Amino acid sequence: MRMPADEPSGAGQPSVRYRAELLQTCTARVLGGMGAPPDLAQLVGQSLVLSNLVGHDSHGIIRLLEYAGWVRQGHLVPDARPHVAWQETGTSLVDGGWGWGQASATLATQLIIRMTRSSGCAAVVIARCNHVGRLGEYVNSIADAGMMGLAFCNTGGAVVAPYGGVRRVLGTNPFAWAVPGSGSHNLVLDFSTAVIAAGKVVLAGLSGTPIEPGALLDAQGQPSTRAEDLDSGGVLLAFGRHKGSGLSVLIDVVAGLLSGTLPACVSESGFGNGTVLIAIDLARFVAPENFRSVSAEFAAKMYSASPAIGPTVLLPGELEAATEAERRRDGVVIPAGVRRNLVDLAAQFDVAVPELA
Amino acid sequence: MRMPADEPSGAGQPSVRYRAELLQTCTARVLGGMGAPPDLAQLVGQSLVLSNLVGHDSHGIIRLLEYAGWVRQGHLVPDARPHVAWQETGTSLVDGGWGWGQASATLATQLIIRMTRSSGCAAVVIARCNHVGRLGEYVNSIADAGMMGLAFCNTGGAVVAPYGGVRRVLGTNPFAWAVPGSGSHNLVLDFSTAVIAAGKVVLAGLSGTPIEPGALLDAQGQPSTRAEDLDSGGVLLAFGRHKGSGLSVLIDVVAGLLSGTLPACVSESGFGNGTVLIAIDLARFVAPENFRSVSAEFAAKMYSASPAIGPTVLLPGELEAATEAERRRDGVVIPAGVRRNLVDLAAQFDVAVPELA
Repeated sequence: MRMPADEPSGAGQPSVRYRAELLQTCTARVLGGMGAPPDLAQLVGQSLVLSNLVGHDSHGIIRLLEYAGWVRQGHLVPDARPHVAWQETGTSLVDGGWGWGQASATLATQLIIRMTRSSGCAAVVIARCNHVGRLGEYVNSIADAGMMGLAFCNTGGAVVAPYGGVRRVLGTNPFAWAVPGSGSHNLVLDFSTAVIAAGKVVLAGLSGTPIEPGALLDAQGQPSTRAEDLDSGGVLLAFGRHKGSGLSVLIDVVAGLLSGTLPACVSESGFGNGTVLIAIDLARFVAPENFRSVSAEFAAKMYSASPAIGPTVLLPGELEAATEAERRRDGVVIPAGVRRNLVDLAAQFDVAVPELA
Repeated sequence: MRMPADEPSGAGQPSVRYRAELLQTCTARVLGGMGAPPDLAQLVGQSLVLSNLVGHDSHGIIRLLEYAGWVRQGHLVPDARPHVAWQETGTSLVDGGWGWGQASATLATQLIIRMTRSSGCAAVVIARCNHVGRLGEYVNSIADAGMMGLAFCNTGGAVVAPYGGVRRVLGTNPFAWAVPGSGSHNLVLDFSTAVIAAGKVVLAGLSGTPIEPGALLDAQGQPSTRAEDLDSGGVLLAFGRHKGSGLSVLIDVVAGLLSGTLPACVSESGFGNGTVLIAIDLARFVAPENFRSVSAEFAAKMYSASPAIGPTVLLPGELEAATEAERRRDGVVIPAGVRRNLVDLAAQFDVAVPELA
């Protein structure tokens, strides 16, 4: 099942390319070892590997190490099942029971699609939710149902300074938004309100890559590009100056308060992803075929704005869709360090992943 | 009623400071002259002057000149009244009838508050809507009702390049979001997805002020800080690189398609603000007193992130609330050019504004 990889890991051992199905199987086995029932292990494993497939390795199987720590510390209850705490017309609260966030978000996504089909517009909030994964996955599913999906969550552990500030107040508070596209993929926007997501700083630190300028202050409040400065008292910056910072503030307050998770800077635990999903049934306003044909015209105009020399303008979600197609075909490159962590975790939880060893 | 102003206009005549009530009266008279019935003239006049009061002069009475042009060209029907085209649980369409956008948005705001009180979450879209004004006004009203309000609109006339592009595809597509705050004002976020709003480029051009770097390309696709380069084939840039550009894309597609206004780059007229409001009843999830007390803790943490030297971190909407208090007390400074336009318009539409002459 191993395939040769293009990139060396830089850590003595080579990166290896694996098929997604194999990674899912091994990931599910490790999650099962942590105590996840088979169906939840499958669901979380698929969600993590999907992040690798679309190119967001920071949200992929690299997370297993962190999850294992949470399970050991009792933050994550591996056999907890999310349930609908209450549901009224237009609004509902899903209780994640501090189980797998991906299971909560999948339930919430299925629920909001049903609710929106009947009431046109709905909001579903997830309480007691561990790491929810990649929000783009859920809004993409909502768009697959012919709806507009919007999602945001606040993230436990303040690590971002508000605009003009130098201290940690906000989480990296992601925001995602999707609608059907004109072609083979939906329009999917999904971004951290920090200039770069915390997970990407960790990846940069592991590979010794500098962080882009304007993303990080060191402990003295001075601009830095060294990933390790974040660990030694530094702070991430919000994207887009007062605009991105303001988005992060609203996300922290709305998602933190509606979910009961509280904004990271107020919460005593600084834990969990208070998550809000909002959906609108597009078909109430516009026929799907009209939506699709106007979207196609819009896409053509977008491409025509590209400069004569240089890369083409991309639609939101286009890079992810292309990466997914390529990685489903060619496999996912897993750096040696990530593979080693997975093998070590499997040993710790007494499951076998001989395919990776 | 005239009060001395601090700033000279730089155009030969001094700026003058006027009380808001006087400006509203004169503005309503001019709007009446354009053909607005008295109640609509009052409503639009108050909305415009409120923009001046909160410090967004680009959305204030300076707009009257543009509106007069639209009335003359038949784009804006001054006595058209918005009406609810259809309403179902959770969703509704307001038909603005190409009248005053502020009247449509005020109706849509009142409607969404009623709908959200009964169904918890709602979306109201405005079709055939002229310049809607400042979105922050409407989400602020929704927050006054104890709800989360979110609004966005696409703007007629492509003037912004998508990330990586060099040609006009997108409007300045603003986004606004508000919830109740802990103190005397709501948390109100309201921004253009262009680095700077087109109205602010016009103001900068009038006063000869350079545009901030990173906001504008000239006709050759080169970075520029000269406001006049926008008129000679230049293009504005979206804020926050691919993130702000992606927000603008989603706004253009969703607001353009749900309202029937179409994205600016697809529309033949390139006219109107397709507008979407979304609201959630916060009280279904959290008691208002809890919301308020946690918000107060959050605000304190935000302020504590300020650097030892330099300005204090601000909450979204705080600057606007402070400016409004000051201008309600001390009056609004109107540059000589804007005052002259108002006096000229009054003469053209045969109404008297002796207080400004």
